[in-house]
Amino acid sequence: MKNIGIAIVGLGNIGSRLYKEILSKKKDIGLKTNTKINIVAISAKNIKKKRSFKFNKKIFFKNPLEITKNPKVNIVIELIGLSDGISKRVVESALKNRKNVITANKALISKHGDYLSFLAEKNKVNLEFEAAVGGGIPVLRTIKDGLATNKIHKVIGILNGTSNYILTKMQKNKDSFKNVLKDAQKLGLAEPNPKFDLDGSDVLAKIRILSSLSFNKKISKIACLKNGIENIELKDIEMAEKLDLRIKLLGITEIINNKLFERVHPCLIKKDNYIANIDGVMNAVILEGYPVGESVLQGEGAGPGPTSSALMSDLLSILRGNIKFPFGIPFNKRRSVSFYDKNKNYNSLYLRFEVKDKPGVLSQITKQLAKYKISIERLIQIPDHNKKRASIVIITHKVKEAYSSKCLKSFKSNKNVLKNPTIIRLF
Amino acid sequence: MKNIGIAIVGLGNIGSRLYKEILSKKKDIGLKTNTKINIVAISAKNIKKKRSFKFNKKIFFKNPLEITKNPKVNIVIELIGLSDGISKRVVESALKNRKNVITANKALISKHGDYLSFLAEKNKVNLEFEAAVGGGIPVLRTIKDGLATNKIHKVIGILNGTSNYILTKMQKNKDSFKNVLKDAQKLGLAEPNPKFDLDGSDVLAKIRILSSLSFNKKISKIACLKNGIENIELKDIEMAEKLDLRIKLLGITEIINNKLFERVHPCLIKKDNYIANIDGVMNAVILEGYPVGESVLQGEGAGPGPTSSALMSDLLSILRGNIKFPFGIPFNKRRSVSFYDKNKNYNSLYLRFEVKDKPGVLSQITKQLAKYKISIERLIQIPDHNKKRASIVIITHKVKEAYSSKCLKSFKSNKNVLKNPTIIRLF
Repeated sequence: MKNIGIAIVGLGNIGSRLYKEILSKKKDIGLKTNTKINIVAISAKNIKKKRSFKFNKKIFFKNPLEITKNPKVNIVIELIGLSDGISKRVVESALKNRKNVITANKALISKHGDYLSFLAEKNKVNLEFEAAVGGGIPVLRTIKDGLATNKIHKVIGILNGTSNYILTKMQKNKDSFKNVLKDAQKLGLAEPNPKFDLDGSDVLAKIRILSSLSFNKKISKIACLKNGIENIELKDIEMAEKLDLRIKLLGITEIINNKLFERVHPCLIKKDNYIANIDGVMNAVILEGYPVGESVLQGEGAGPGPTSSALMSDLLSILRGNIKFPFGIPFNKRRSVSFYDKNKNYNSLYLRFEVKDKPGVLSQITKQLAKYKISIERLIQIPDHNKKRASIVIITHKVKEAYSSKCLKSFKSNKNVLKNPTIIRLF
Repeated sequence: MKNIGIAIVGLGNIGSRLYKEILSKKKDIGLKTNTKINIVAISAKNIKKKRSFKFNKKIFFKNPLEITKNPKVNIVIELIGLSDGISKRVVESALKNRKNVITANKALISKHGDYLSFLAEKNKVNLEFEAAVGGGIPVLRTIKDGLATNKIHKVIGILNGTSNYILTKMQKNKDSFKNVLKDAQKLGLAEPNPKFDLDGSDVLAKIRILSSLSFNKKISKIACLKNGIENIELKDIEMAEKLDLRIKLLGITEIINNKLFERVHPCLIKKDNYIANIDGVMNAVILEGYPVGESVLQGEGAGPGPTSSALMSDLLSILRGNIKFPFGIPFNKRRSVSFYDKNKNYNSLYLRFEVKDKPGVLSQITKQLAKYKISIERLIQIPDHNKKRASIVIITHKVKEAYSSKCLKSFKSNKNVLKNPTIIRLF
């Protein structure tokens, strides 16, 4: 049996859970990989913080960069987070010092994954990041191994547990965005600063990683289309309900005429569609490939349990000597992406205008839509006489992104339109 | 680049598709695994049969056992089928001659998997069988790799495309079992002799493989509970519809008090449950594990496309040098199973009695049920006056298997009960 030294950098919720998980699975891991593992180094901001486990102070390093040079360490597990700063330096230094690296850091991988995978291949070590996408769902491994050699042409995912929890709770409890967010923060299901979860950035990072793996491409840099859920109000949820639809924040990536189209935005989906029923903190990914057809993976998207499950699968992959290329194929064979022009995208739209309740406003809006060749399939006006305002909800026929974005901007100068229209694309 | 010789034994629908798939993916495989693959041997019953591809006659072997001794061959792909006979001899001989083996043969693996995995480990080669369970869904790989070190305690699956297609069509088209089966045969979705698909044997074979992998156990030999769908009639489907339920053939395996409980039987499932909505030839597997929680995998369960996707993932696993133990851990560490007493199982039941329509019959049935402590939650009687008979449908409260099986047998001597009662367990 080979001795393997493991280092954990970052001992928050995830790191602490993983520490205990590794100790409790030593025997199982030995059986499966014929190795004897030991946690030989840990690092965290504060050695004195109260933790749920005891450790030998000798293995604690104040400076995590020291760990990456320690000859006893074979595998470094980075659980600090953020795309730059100390997390990047730790991973970089570990790879350069020929340590295998496991990370759950989607921000880091989606920004620096190309460079880091190059480093890993150059130094003949593994860089694994299953926990960066889909929590406990082994979606990256499924693309690299289980569906290897399939030609994947489209990936659709519910990839952010916080957003999905908020949309689900708003719908089930008929409660406002603000209230539900507050509750989610109390329950630890939303960060104190939830910006990146709510504005689509987190999903975009995950979609970029999925694109690279699915299409054997380098990681893209340009954001094609990105909207979050911050402008979704209870009245949108209720309107969707009336139309037998549900609102979900989707990440979608596909190849259209050999060009890459990545996008993240809320979608209105038919109630009986599979993906409309992925509720709460669950994540789901739909992969469309040839010859396999449609594959669906669903599971818990966040939290210490699912995340440590994914980290452990990375650990076993390294201990078994599996997977040599972090993105499935060698760095220099991954093509650079050329982008699909998002303005060519066609979609039916749900538009909600908040307007002053006075004569002529509706006609101003419909006229403006007609000017940009946007034809209306359905129009619903909901007056609020007390406040002397009204909501106008419009479902359009399919319209080019180029027209709709210009059209919506044009309402900025209209004083009767009280705020930026809310836009949700129909799935 | 290393040269690797591949042999395909069996050139039916699957084998032919795989032959072409391998040729078309040579470059991709080279990139991913740094190997140069060639198909160096093929074998089939009839060399002259018209095929969708051309091949060099020099690589055709009449006797597949010769292939297994050919020094040019590194990997043998067995696609003959059946648990014994030539398919077993080919796999056995290949492993003994230190060839890696890939097979889609669930009957073979569920019967001889322990012995064959022992042979593979002894000869230090791989034995891979992803295509044996779940078609294109990489469920075995997910258990071995993606969810490695999770403690899985329950697996539920829709694992037979033929049965699921028939149940779905009966429900959607309001058509009889017989008619739908005939159509399925015409479409190539049911075998000319569909016995093993319809009586639950195929699902049981798959469940046994899933149990072994999930619970690190040897393959079980005793059938705990096995019913197929042959006794499901349109009237059951219609009754289910009225009760907001759907009928699905499920395979379930779980650990109850350290004992193994495997079963295959039709289930009545609430209409809005995820698994009730897996329709047609789709397969789905739900894995309950710790710490990952519930994971769901869904995809096409059969046909040349999905099956060759699974076979190709096995091929890449071998070419990458992944996975040393066919069942995840060494043969001699896999425990033998002790069985859960199926008579202890509790279930609510749907029972349909076909009876003579005359006074006193209903009371005979209810009296008999009461004698075996089976209490009735709901009773529906549907008379067929023309034929002077009636269907009596009973939904029971939870009842022990021991009582219900004895009770149902007791009706055999009752001449007013025209055939064995149909039994469907509530999920």
